[in-house]
Amino acid sequence: MLKDFFKEKSSLVNVWIKDFLEKEPSKNIIHEAITYSIFNGGKRLRPILAKTFYDIYKKNNLFDDDIKFLAIGLEFIHTYSLIHDDLPSMDNDDYRRGNLTCHKKYNEAIAILAGDALLTEAFICFSKMKSINTLKIINLISSRIGFLGMIKGQALDILNEKFSPNNKKNKFLLKTIHARKTSDLLLASIVSGAMLSNNIDEKNIILIKKYAINLGHMFQITDDILDIIGDKKLLGKKGSDLENQKLTYPSIYGLEKSKIFVSKYKKNSQNLVNKMDINLECKNFLYKLLDYIENRTY
Amino acid sequence: MLKDFFKEKSSLVNVWIKDFLEKEPSKNIIHEAITYSIFNGGKRLRPILAKTFYDIYKKNNLFDDDIKFLAIGLEFIHTYSLIHDDLPSMDNDDYRRGNLTCHKKYNEAIAILAGDALLTEAFICFSKMKSINTLKIINLISSRIGFLGMIKGQALDILNEKFSPNNKKNKFLLKTIHARKTSDLLLASIVSGAMLSNNIDEKNIILIKKYAINLGHMFQITDDILDIIGDKKLLGKKGSDLENQKLTYPSIYGLEKSKIFVSKYKKNSQNLVNKMDINLECKNFLYKLLDYIENRTY
Repeated sequence: MLKDFFKEKSSLVNVWIKDFLEKEPSKNIIHEAITYSIFNGGKRLRPILAKTFYDIYKKNNLFDDDIKFLAIGLEFIHTYSLIHDDLPSMDNDDYRRGNLTCHKKYNEAIAILAGDALLTEAFICFSKMKSINTLKIINLISSRIGFLGMIKGQALDILNEKFSPNNKKNKFLLKTIHARKTSDLLLASIVSGAMLSNNIDEKNIILIKKYAINLGHMFQITDDILDIIGDKKLLGKKGSDLENQKLTYPSIYGLEKSKIFVSKYKKNSQNLVNKMDINLECKNFLYKLLDYIENRTY
Repeated sequence: MLKDFFKEKSSLVNVWIKDFLEKEPSKNIIHEAITYSIFNGGKRLRPILAKTFYDIYKKNNLFDDDIKFLAIGLEFIHTYSLIHDDLPSMDNDDYRRGNLTCHKKYNEAIAILAGDALLTEAFICFSKMKSINTLKIINLISSRIGFLGMIKGQALDILNEKFSPNNKKNKFLLKTIHARKTSDLLLASIVSGAMLSNNIDEKNIILIKKYAINLGHMFQITDDILDIIGDKKLLGKKGSDLENQKLTYPSIYGLEKSKIFVSKYKKNSQNLVNKMDINLECKNFLYKLLDYIENRTY
């Protein structure tokens, strides 16, 4: 059932993105590279989470145009981060989701500019929102993706390749990398969606923040596990974290203990859902969402 | 006199930037690379223009904290664009203003991330502004630096190296590159400063937009000229546009005709200043500003 939900919602997000990009008055090579990268089979997890939490808390449809702009902007930010992460001076990946990465399809300069443009376009999107919380949302998102957030995660990640395992410092470092690289944008997506509803109190904001952090760890550890046991065809990758000597949960704790970590973070998330002031139907939905993320195959 | 004005104002902007960066709760290598790049001797032209037009139109000091955030953000955007432009896959410059470029001082990955972080931090700054025009300003700035603005200029610039001169298409292309790469951010700076005053009508907005476009061309052509006749020591560059077969006014029109273009754009700017609803003192100041930009040596 959740699979259908994700399929339906990601199609909706794709229509929004396509519509937004096609409306641009002029097209150029950067526009082409952006379009190529964004329609490279992403799951649209961040926009879907934003819309889910907006729908859960909203009381009317006042901000339905806003959620569209928020969703597009969040996916733009995610795609920018992937394009730059794939660059030769960073992770040096030739393939993503089975297709050539942006710098392989075009060239390095175009890929850098396409990433820059996506990040910039995201703020064009956000600036079109009409909610009284718009500036707070822009502040939240930009803070979580800056050099104390997502960018810090990427910097720590590339600076700490070729690690030595079984080192206590590495365990702390790994958790920080996951928190910054993955949880921060997921948190920004979930919280900004809820804030857009204009119908959430401080207590629930704190709960969903904690929920997002746990979800982020759970998501990233399953990602690390999939890199080892997953179907390379489904993942569309060549090479692996192991070959690249990346700091991951399986490389530090082993596969079985990593799975226990996933269960732990899932349990934490479930407990937090339980405390949220939302109806049972919404809670059940969020429980299923956690199952879906735990059992995903790509 | 204008020299003292610029010296004083750029010192003020430097204090603002330093203060902002030092307040960050944690420092890391990206913070270090940002600090290195931003204190690499910039003129602070964009923040100074924003503050100048804010001061010209403002009626009280209501938004004096806002202009600080606007100024810092604009300089962050300018610095991000320089760091990415200097990268090996772009202009491949080892020196800027006599010092190593960011990727030479650190490495390519750090330089890409430092640029990304500066762009992101700019929006953190803007989101702190309290003016009712804040979202309009964010929309204006992001639109002018996106793939229809500054990024388009850089894309056209790198795609059209090794041009053939005396080609009518090149003349149009060159004007577009200047408009996108230089005028767009100058326009965003000037107009957002004026909008922050909350005291400018549509007629004057149109006038200062035209003024900014002419100022941008004037500034960029003097830049191209300085690349040939300027003191390399003052400019702190190695290599030249000519060696890199860059599309510039001198390379297409020759030096003398380029100087005539500067005069033409200066004359246009003067005429536009004359039409603005501002007092004579302000007009005289803006005339002097044009003299200063025409006669600058670096």
